[in-house]
Amino acid sequence: MRIRHTILALAGLLFFTHCEKKTTSTEEENAEKLDLVQYVDPFIGTGEHGHTYPGATMPFGMLQVSPINGVSAWDWCSGYHYSDSIIIGFGHLTLSGTGIGDLNDVKLMPASITVDLAQLSVGKDKQYPEKSTALRDMLPYKSRYSHSNETATPGYYQVFLEDPKINVELTTAKRVAFHRYTYADGAEQSVVFNPGFAINWDDPTHMRLTQKDENTLIGERFSTGWAKNQKVFFAIRFNKPITEFKTHMQGENITSAQAFFNNENKELLVKVALSSVSTDNALQNMATEGEGFPFDEIRDKAKLAWNEALESINVESDNKDLKTIFYTALYHTKVAPVTFSDANGDFRLENDSIVKKANYTAYSTFSLWDTFRTEHPLLTITDPDKVADMINSMLAYYQVNKLLPVWTLYGNETNTMTGYHSVAVIAEAYLKGVRGFNAEEAYQAMKATMMSDARGLDLYKKYGYVPYDKLDESVTITLEYAYDDWCLAQMAKKLGKEEDYKYFLNRSMAYKKLFDPSVEFMRGKSADGQWNPVFDPKHSNHREHTDYTEGNAWQHSWFVPQDVNGFIALFPSKEAFTNKLENLFTESSEITGDNVSVDISGLIGQYAHGNEPSHHIAYLFNKAGQPWRTQYWVNHILKTQYNTTPEGYSGNEDCGQMSAWYVMSAIGLYPMNPASTEYEITSPMFAKTTMKVGQGKTFVIEAKNFSDKNIYIQKATLNGKPLQGTSISHEQIMQGGTLVLELGAEPNKSGSLN
Amino acid sequence: MRIRHTILALAGLLFFTHCEKKTTSTEEENAEKLDLVQYVDPFIGTGEHGHTYPGATMPFGMLQVSPINGVSAWDWCSGYHYSDSIIIGFGHLTLSGTGIGDLNDVKLMPASITVDLAQLSVGKDKQYPEKSTALRDMLPYKSRYSHSNETATPGYYQVFLEDPKINVELTTAKRVAFHRYTYADGAEQSVVFNPGFAINWDDPTHMRLTQKDENTLIGERFSTGWAKNQKVFFAIRFNKPITEFKTHMQGENITSAQAFFNNENKELLVKVALSSVSTDNALQNMATEGEGFPFDEIRDKAKLAWNEALESINVESDNKDLKTIFYTALYHTKVAPVTFSDANGDFRLENDSIVKKANYTAYSTFSLWDTFRTEHPLLTITDPDKVADMINSMLAYYQVNKLLPVWTLYGNETNTMTGYHSVAVIAEAYLKGVRGFNAEEAYQAMKATMMSDARGLDLYKKYGYVPYDKLDESVTITLEYAYDDWCLAQMAKKLGKEEDYKYFLNRSMAYKKLFDPSVEFMRGKSADGQWNPVFDPKHSNHREHTDYTEGNAWQHSWFVPQDVNGFIALFPSKEAFTNKLENLFTESSEITGDNVSVDISGLIGQYAHGNEPSHHIAYLFNKAGQPWRTQYWVNHILKTQYNTTPEGYSGNEDCGQMSAWYVMSAIGLYPMNPASTEYEITSPMFAKTTMKVGQGKTFVIEAKNFSDKNIYIQKATLNGKPLQGTSISHEQIMQGGTLVLELGAEPNKSGSLN
Repeated sequence: MRIRHTILALAGLLFFTHCEKKTTSTEEENAEKLDLVQYVDPFIGTGEHGHTYPGATMPFGMLQVSPINGVSAWDWCSGYHYSDSIIIGFGHLTLSGTGIGDLNDVKLMPASITVDLAQLSVGKDKQYPEKSTALRDMLPYKSRYSHSNETATPGYYQVFLEDPKINVELTTAKRVAFHRYTYADGAEQSVVFNPGFAINWDDPTHMRLTQKDENTLIGERFSTGWAKNQKVFFAIRFNKPITEFKTHMQGENITSAQAFFNNENKELLVKVALSSVSTDNALQNMATEGEGFPFDEIRDKAKLAWNEALESINVESDNKDLKTIFYTALYHTKVAPVTFSDANGDFRLENDSIVKKANYTAYSTFSLWDTFRTEHPLLTITDPDKVADMINSMLAYYQVNKLLPVWTLYGNETNTMTGYHSVAVIAEAYLKGVRGFNAEEAYQAMKATMMSDARGLDLYKKYGYVPYDKLDESVTITLEYAYDDWCLAQMAKKLGKEEDYKYFLNRSMAYKKLFDPSVEFMRGKSADGQWNPVFDPKHSNHREHTDYTEGNAWQHSWFVPQDVNGFIALFPSKEAFTNKLENLFTESSEITGDNVSVDISGLIGQYAHGNEPSHHIAYLFNKAGQPWRTQYWVNHILKTQYNTTPEGYSGNEDCGQMSAWYVMSAIGLYPMNPASTEYEITSPMFAKTTMKVGQGKTFVIEAKNFSDKNIYIQKATLNGKPLQGTSISHEQIMQGGTLVLELGAEPNKSGSLN
Repeated sequence: MRIRHTILALAGLLFFTHCEKKTTSTEEENAEKLDLVQYVDPFIGTGEHGHTYPGATMPFGMLQVSPINGVSAWDWCSGYHYSDSIIIGFGHLTLSGTGIGDLNDVKLMPASITVDLAQLSVGKDKQYPEKSTALRDMLPYKSRYSHSNETATPGYYQVFLEDPKINVELTTAKRVAFHRYTYADGAEQSVVFNPGFAINWDDPTHMRLTQKDENTLIGERFSTGWAKNQKVFFAIRFNKPITEFKTHMQGENITSAQAFFNNENKELLVKVALSSVSTDNALQNMATEGEGFPFDEIRDKAKLAWNEALESINVESDNKDLKTIFYTALYHTKVAPVTFSDANGDFRLENDSIVKKANYTAYSTFSLWDTFRTEHPLLTITDPDKVADMINSMLAYYQVNKLLPVWTLYGNETNTMTGYHSVAVIAEAYLKGVRGFNAEEAYQAMKATMMSDARGLDLYKKYGYVPYDKLDESVTITLEYAYDDWCLAQMAKKLGKEEDYKYFLNRSMAYKKLFDPSVEFMRGKSADGQWNPVFDPKHSNHREHTDYTEGNAWQHSWFVPQDVNGFIALFPSKEAFTNKLENLFTESSEITGDNVSVDISGLIGQYAHGNEPSHHIAYLFNKAGQPWRTQYWVNHILKTQYNTTPEGYSGNEDCGQMSAWYVMSAIGLYPMNPASTEYEITSPMFAKTTMKVGQGKTFVIEAKNFSDKNIYIQKATLNGKPLQGTSISHEQIMQGGTLVLELGAEPNKSGSLN
């Protein structure tokens, strides 16, 4: 969510060549299967403000085993940033692309020196978001490393630690991570634990690390931070017996430890399992991968799983960079949400009650303010089998606060960002025909949430909008609640709840109350109906003393995906609307204010692709009779806001959302209004895309006359018949078929695609 | 119970002087109170086969914090033997005077070197009873020590460890032990744990040692050995934070560990609490002594408690050696049984059920085959308040096997030795008027036990005796069951159970079936009524292929305390009886056989004072009309079988029994038949003895004309009136009063005391 307004420098050739080498050097040939993992470069997004991680994970896996630089600063939200040259360990829970740092739990660091543990205290630096290396630099076990001896591919990560001269390899199964450490010949072999280490807001509150048997450590690390009640239980098993295990405590907490091993051979193998419930569950999770330490086998399985996951969309192109951007993006859409429940179905709720043996897989890391826009819609195509369980998870979390999730981290409600977009996600899934959850129960949760007094809903209900003099970010909040209301209304309608339908449909028109025709922007309105006298559409103030969330009026005035025609009608004319929309992209990129939100990034005029409120905007042209301007601007964004370098995302990747935007836009389909179940069509980046849509069926998008310059759709047919309008329905896609888009260099100004 | 047949060398003057110095050098003046602890030398019994320990304990305390030599051999049953010059640590549970080694749990050893923990495995040597130092000598943390820098006094022990140059001081409260380690200036300060270490039969099965907080370790050590199911939970707290805690595991067990501390000052203070139930209970026990580490205060309290305990019998003498022997003996009568329940009343039964919040203090270490003879009878005088709780404990243990205790170690039935003498202990207590337990419940447990088929009772019931061809030690078992039956009969009578009384009284005459008039010894009889054809009254075979337990026919034929007149009637005449009895003391001390019981020791002729079956025998003269021979032989035993050196007991001290014999005999009273509630009278070793008998009353024994040569009672008056017979009743003693014994150098052959 947070991005500095920095212009991205495109990658130098030197660097790019290096990346390519990495992803191919670790591949083995797999003749029967498409080898798509070769196109994934997990380093993309690890530089600039992408905030992704290079470590190993499985599709929607429980674990993300990844290197940690040990810096508490904004660009280290995942624990790792490409600009760094120091590694302090390898953690097992990692956030992908978020704007707030947390996790990095259960960190292991191989070492060949005996460490003074008393030196390793509760390391934590709240000088956020300034870069702080003060504490990190005190750690005696850190090591330098070089990107020239670092490899990442889906499910596998390798780095050579230069100081202890240890080669580290990481791979993972769904619930068990595997490490392979190769020490220098004859060197002392040990592993250092520093569970007191925490990044950003995180405060460790309880840390235990106990040896269970000769080869096994168990323990737990509780912390409060972004997730208020995070309880991570873990089991760590080594292939060699621990000869000595050394710990240091502060108060009742193990803040550091070191385990020693014989050095009879150079390799030390480790496996790690976690649980939110108990160390016993962690051990049970570990047992799902059997007894041994088959590192190479697990790595091969991870590769296979990723190939299968990536096969859901097969794009054809001779441009390897494009495929790298695309498959890395698709990869990033499948690293979150993450599996949260244990192998036996247990998982912990924020109030410490345990859901026992759930008959579904529980997921967490719901970055809903971001992901309701494109990530969740994409999952309804690529991973419909997981969507119901994500909703079941949301309903489980609902039981704690009687409010649906806003932003769920490790089962905790963080209440980060605005809106109740789980309402949109559930409505969309239900309206798209996803089943496997109790729709009536879900509906009651959605309604109870939207009828509650939480997070400004009391004001919204009382005034019909959120007055700016009562609550910050009032414009964004009002627009987003209006959208959530609309989604709820559609679900009510589908369930035959006519009265609710009318009520929420009416509420969903709240956006109209904040449109100031005198400025043609959405604008803060006071409780007594007066426009906020202080108004500058380019002004931003981050999160406080502002009517807009991480943005300004230019970026936030367009959020009416549910009723574009009604929105357009607020303008003097459709042309007035499209002119304004065009101006968004052509205005100067100046953002005014003393405390501009760092999340405003990826600017094209005032359009800010680096943050989510802009994501649907280019598609509004489709609805305003100028689909060629959608085609133009989307093509422009696709080509300028993504690249193959570590700086390849123009803002926080945000748990798959930035990538999902790319994946969908690049194939020519976009869920401008997710719960409408329609996808707006634009010109694709590939001559041919084949999507697996289940039951052996495929949906093919053919771009005739595809070329770099032919960015305009001249003609569109679905299964041979001319396509009406500018969109296609989810149902049409899932039935399988072929969408043929004839492209040309000149805009088709018919107002439709034919 | 076990003693080698070694003639004791009396102490050299040099050593004695040293002992005296030790016990006085650690004393402070206590003007108001009698300073009796000055006469206690805890080293007495730590040499030869006494098997006592020199460490610190409280009267009947839960903990015995004591040095451990680390040798698995018979003379190290307490973990410490005076002959050794190596110490490997300081344990918290220690057996006093037993013939089987166990405990030595929760051992701490201060160190100034970093130890290779992998070297410290499950140290255990079953080459019992040979002395084995092989494993001990491999330990890297052991230290030499010298008796010239070692001190012991009730509740306090000190030793200087020569190798690490650490002075160790130990003291204890009832449930919390305190250590004070003074390290060399600037030396590394650490404590080594080696919970895998075990002595003799003990097999550790589960060892955990976890750091709970900066200053605290908790854990448990489970083992199976003499006690089949020993579960010791513990908490160890240091006054300094642990800077590092290092552990080594084998399988799932912590077999060694080392905790490190800063060396900012030379002293490290430690406190340790134990529980049979849980580490939480151990922590609760620890909390009973508050938060700090008031070593000197605890030591002063222990001294005070011991002075109060020793004041129960005040003997007057100018002979300091005699007072040292006496008060050390009295001290040893109060180190066992030991407190077993936690401060909150919880304790663990052998079957792992937990008695919760018992409204009595539970005791364990019931060496009943030894202690029913004199130790328990003595406690009815000195500690009547504890007797009921000991019986309550026995009734709790009864619940596990539905059999009353034989030999209880840490709540476990070890079934060591013969008989069911808890029956005798309970009957005696009840008949003496001890209340505070459910007599009917106790009676039912006693009857159920004696009516069971356990441990030869099936044979005993079927044949009226235990046939030698059906079970080893048949003569001893028969005689002891007959005595237990008699005790049970007396209790039945008191409770008005006339039929039971007759039944058990009849059974108690079983001894008559094994008396062979042709040899005038008790003799093995077969199931078909034939005498064992192999008969040599001086022959001994240890525990197997023998009709006698740890002895021979000479020693075992006299156990008819319940019916001495009936026993005498089996002889041709009373003279024949007394001649035979005299011969016991005057026969040659030759013991025949290839596997002579090592417990036969302290021989005077064939009389073996070093083992318990002899203990009542000298008092049989009283009943046979020759009280002057009781006076003569008891005086002889008192003067020859006890001294002030570490070799001061002529056999295993046996949890207070050897000492209780001394205490009672030395004041002139002996419970020849405990449940008769009568004490046989003999000539005392002190001119005046004052016993506190409760409610502010005293019972005084005055020996007129007391001198070393005047060992014969000429006249006896009780409260001024001539005493009838040779005994006095418990009731007479407890009413308070004065027994005056006029002594002379010539025997009074009247057959009475007047």
